[in-house]
Amino acid sequence: MEIKKFSDFCDQVLPDFNKFLDDKLKSEIKQATLRDAMLYSLDAGGKRVRPMLFLAVAYSSGIKLDKLSQFYDIAGAIELVHTYSLIHDDLPEMDNSDYRRGKLANHKQFGVGPAVLAGDGLLTQAFYWIAKSDLSTDKRMAVVRILAHNAGPMGMVAGQMTDITMENKILTEDELTTLHKEKTADLITAAVTTGAFCAGHELSKNLVQYANDIGLAFQLKDDLNDADDGEDSNKNTFPNLIGKEATEAKLKDLVKDALNAVLKENEFDKNLLVSFLDYFKE
Amino acid sequence: MEIKKFSDFCDQVLPDFNKFLDDKLKSEIKQATLRDAMLYSLDAGGKRVRPMLFLAVAYSSGIKLDKLSQFYDIAGAIELVHTYSLIHDDLPEMDNSDYRRGKLANHKQFGVGPAVLAGDGLLTQAFYWIAKSDLSTDKRMAVVRILAHNAGPMGMVAGQMTDITMENKILTEDELTTLHKEKTADLITAAVTTGAFCAGHELSKNLVQYANDIGLAFQLKDDLNDADDGEDSNKNTFPNLIGKEATEAKLKDLVKDALNAVLKENEFDKNLLVSFLDYFKE
Repeated sequence: MEIKKFSDFCDQVLPDFNKFLDDKLKSEIKQATLRDAMLYSLDAGGKRVRPMLFLAVAYSSGIKLDKLSQFYDIAGAIELVHTYSLIHDDLPEMDNSDYRRGKLANHKQFGVGPAVLAGDGLLTQAFYWIAKSDLSTDKRMAVVRILAHNAGPMGMVAGQMTDITMENKILTEDELTTLHKEKTADLITAAVTTGAFCAGHELSKNLVQYANDIGLAFQLKDDLNDADDGEDSNKNTFPNLIGKEATEAKLKDLVKDALNAVLKENEFDKNLLVSFLDYFKE
Repeated sequence: MEIKKFSDFCDQVLPDFNKFLDDKLKSEIKQATLRDAMLYSLDAGGKRVRPMLFLAVAYSSGIKLDKLSQFYDIAGAIELVHTYSLIHDDLPEMDNSDYRRGKLANHKQFGVGPAVLAGDGLLTQAFYWIAKSDLSTDKRMAVVRILAHNAGPMGMVAGQMTDITMENKILTEDELTTLHKEKTADLITAAVTTGAFCAGHELSKNLVQYANDIGLAFQLKDDLNDADDGEDSNKNTFPNLIGKEATEAKLKDLVKDALNAVLKENEFDKNLLVSFLDYFKE
């Protein structure tokens, strides 16, 4: 592999991928308010971690840089699902966030009704993009299955329901781990495992372990950052439950575990996946 | 075909199909609040028109009654999508309906946040059911594509956005026809066309015409009923736009057009599809 650092990989791929996302959605959605609301959140400056992980795994599996665009539909579908989840999470009766990345939340910009529909539209269009991609039928079908399982009521939606209905109850460490696994890790695991699968590999146990670990690590890092900013003192988070220091130790363990898992892997070039772990050390 | 009346077909199939829906969702969804909220609306006494149409088309295509259960996953997925759309449509910032079929709307029973998530869960699980069905990969993939296209931001979601953002503007007849086509007819068309496709037929122009006609007819009949009940006087409906009598004439024309379309069809037994049109004469 030529590219060894995850940040270099993103520098190479992201501009092209962002243009693809924007052009595709603009050309497909004719209803003007819906198109505007969907694009508003899709183009809100997200880091595209999930689709970049998906593409990095495909690259690490041996797909050359100039062949990665064959997977943009799937990478894009994963980002559509992530974007929908943010729009619905920000709604007043969910996390009630007026801002997202310094911009007004979708429902503050367009109203609650249009924001619900923008989310519904992004979620449904994700499956349309997968169905219309050029990959083999078997690969597309596996992506539909994994994504629907991990992002739906057996994964991400279940985690979000636990999050909003348990806000005033103190969860156990196990319950909180399940919540984070479902709400955050399951979609990241879907991105990583489908990336390998689309590139022609069987699902590997080590890669699933790596994905689960970084998924949970993501949530811990986010919650540590929020705690530093003085936010979320009533929410079910590890900093609130076990304290900041213990959470930092837990994060370190997860990153170590992810590293061990990826180092056991022989089917993939390890550079990018190891380099991605730097994100948690910043 | 042994069964010639649509109502007889429903009498034969519906108890078994309802049990399938309930059992499947109950066994799959572990998050208790989410499961309760999803089942609450799924079991709220809907007539299952869309899945029954799907199954009736499969039956009319030559699939025997005792072989129809192979299609329950797909029929069920269509009903999950319809149910999600009702939950989100009833939300305060959408149609703001406190009741649905005499029961409290989902958000009045569980709260707005859980209702949004119950809808998200039903929509995503629909694609999981399709992906996990026993049909050939090609058939499953076609269903994902048609359903995502017709129920998403190029179909039903677009129609709903027009509906809620144009409430205070008077639409032209053409604009209103597009709204109804997207909001109501597209999902019914998906049910009819995938029913034929799953049973092994190519998509037929006549069947698409039939489906579009009955989809629009559905909306007109609903709006005529609501007008009789004194409801919806500010909404964009044909009774409000062109008057009750002209709407009744339009409905009659659509049913006639649907009948002509189905009578031109040679690939299907016509009894059930013709009998379905009685619904609009009641």
